[in-house]
Amino acid sequence: MASLMEDEVFRSFAKYAAIVIVKMMLMGPWTAYYRMTRKAFANEEDAAAQSKKPEDKKRLLRSDEDVERARRCHQNDLESVVPFVLIGLLFTLTGPDPFWALVHFRAFVGSRLVHTVAYMFALPQPSRGLSWIVGLLTTLSMCHSVIHAVLFH
Amino acid sequence: MASLMEDEVFRSFAKYAAIVIVKMMLMGPWTAYYRMTRKAFANEEDAAAQSKKPEDKKRLLRSDEDVERARRCHQNDLESVVPFVLIGLLFTLTGPDPFWALVHFRAFVGSRLVHTVAYMFALPQPSRGLSWIVGLLTTLSMCHSVIHAVLFH
Amino acid sequence: MASLMEDEVFRSFAKYAAIVIVKMMLMGPWTAYYRMTRKAFANEEDAAAQSKKPEDKKRLLRSDEDVERARRCHQNDLESVVPFVLIGLLFTLTGPDPFWALVHFRAFVGSRLVHTVAYMFALPQPSRGLSWIVGLLTTLSMCHSVIHAVLFH
Repeated sequence: MASLMEDEVFRSFAKYAAIVIVKMMLMGPWTAYYRMTRKAFANEEDAAAQSKKPEDKKRLLRSDEDVERARRCHQNDLESVVPFVLIGLLFTLTGPDPFWALVHFRAFVGSRLVHTVAYMFALPQPSRGLSWIVGLLTTLSMCHSVIHAVLFH
Repeated sequence: MASLMEDEVFRSFAKYAAIVIVKMMLMGPWTAYYRMTRKAFANEEDAAAQSKKPEDKKRLLRSDEDVERARRCHQNDLESVVPFVLIGLLFTLTGPDPFWALVHFRAFVGSRLVHTVAYMFALPQPSRGLSWIVGLLTTLSMCHSVIHAVLFH
Repeated sequence: MASLMEDEVFRSFAKYAAIVIVKMMLMGPWTAYYRMTRKAFANEEDAAAQSKKPEDKKRLLRSDEDVERARRCHQNDLESVVPFVLIGLLFTLTGPDPFWALVHFRAFVGSRLVHTVAYMFALPQPSRGLSWIVGLLTTLSMCHSVIHAVLFH
C-alpha cells in the first residue's frame, strides 16, 4: 500500500478520479435544488413536506424540464465517469507510461467539465456531443491498454 | 496482495463495501417482485410471458407507483453507493487513520440502510433527505482526504 | 504494483472487467444511433441540430421504443456490471482460488453477453430473466466470498 502512494501514476489517478467523482456527486444536490425551487417532486412524502393541503399535492408531483435536464446530465455521468474510474484504476495498476496516463486522465476530466457546462446550460450542439465522445474514446483507449497489458504480460 | 489483506482498513472497507453492494443489488429483485405482483411490465416480451392474449398486453405494459418507487431507490443507490465504493477504495489505499476510516465506513453504511427504509416505506421527510445528506457528506469527506493525501504526499 | 500484474487472478479479472466495461459503454453509441435514425431526441438543442424549423421541434422531441429499450439495457448494465467490477476487484485482492475465480468471471461475462442479445433483440422470456439471474448470483457469490475472507482472515 505504501508502495502505491509512492507511484506517481496512482497519485495522479487518485486526484483526477476524486475530482470527477465530486463533480458527478454534485449533480445530486443540483437536482434537489431544482426540485425545491421549481416545486417539482417525484414522491408523495416530498410534496407533503412542502404543503399539507391535498389540492397542492397533485400540483407538486410533476416533472419539470430543468429537473429532468439535471437528471439526464447525472445519468450521463453515471454512464461515463463510473467506467472511467473503474478501468482507470485497473489501467493504473498495469503500470502505464506516466506521461501517457496523465494525458488520458486530463483529457477525460476536461471533457467531462465541458460536457457538464454544455448540458446544464443547453449549449448548441455539437459541443455536448463532442465532449461526450472525447470522454468515451479516452475510456475505451484505457480499456484497450488494460487488455493489451494483461494479454502480453 | 497478501499485504492488503494484512491491512485492517482494507479488510474493514471490503466488508462494508460488500454489505452495501449487496443491499444495492437487492433492489433489482425487489423491483422484479413488484413488477410480477403488480403486473406492471416495461417490455412486450415480459407481458407476453404473463398472458398470450393480445388484449392483455396493453394492460400489462404500464407503470406502477410501487415499481417506480423501487426504481428510484435503486437509482439513488447507483448515485450514492457506487461513488462511495470507488472513492472508498482510493481512500483506503492512501493509508488513512484506521479509526477515522471506520467512522466514515459505518456512517455511510448506516445512512444507506436508513435511506432504503425511509424510501421504500415512504417515511415522512426529512428522514430520507437527512440520510441521503449524511451519505453524501461522508463520501465527499473521503474525496477531500484522497485529494489532500496525494497533494501533500 | 508489479506484484499485482504477476498475479494470474488479477490479470484474468482485469481482462474480463475491461471486456464487460467496453460492452456496457457501447450501449451509449447504440442509444445515440437509435436517436439519430429514429429521430427521437430528449434535448431541445439536439432537435435544433437536426432542423431549424420550429414546427419540427415537437416532432423530434419524443420517446421511441427502440431508444427506450437500449436505455433500459444500458441501465441494467449499470445495475449489474458496475457491482461486478467493484466487488470483483475486492474479491481478486482477497486472494481467491484461481480456478474458482475464473469460473465466476466467465459465468458473469457470458451471462451479460446473453442478456444484451436477449434484451436488444427482444427474445422471448425467460432468456433475459435467466441471464440476469446468473449474473446476479455470480456477483452475490463474490460478495459472500469477500465477507467470508475478511471475517475469517
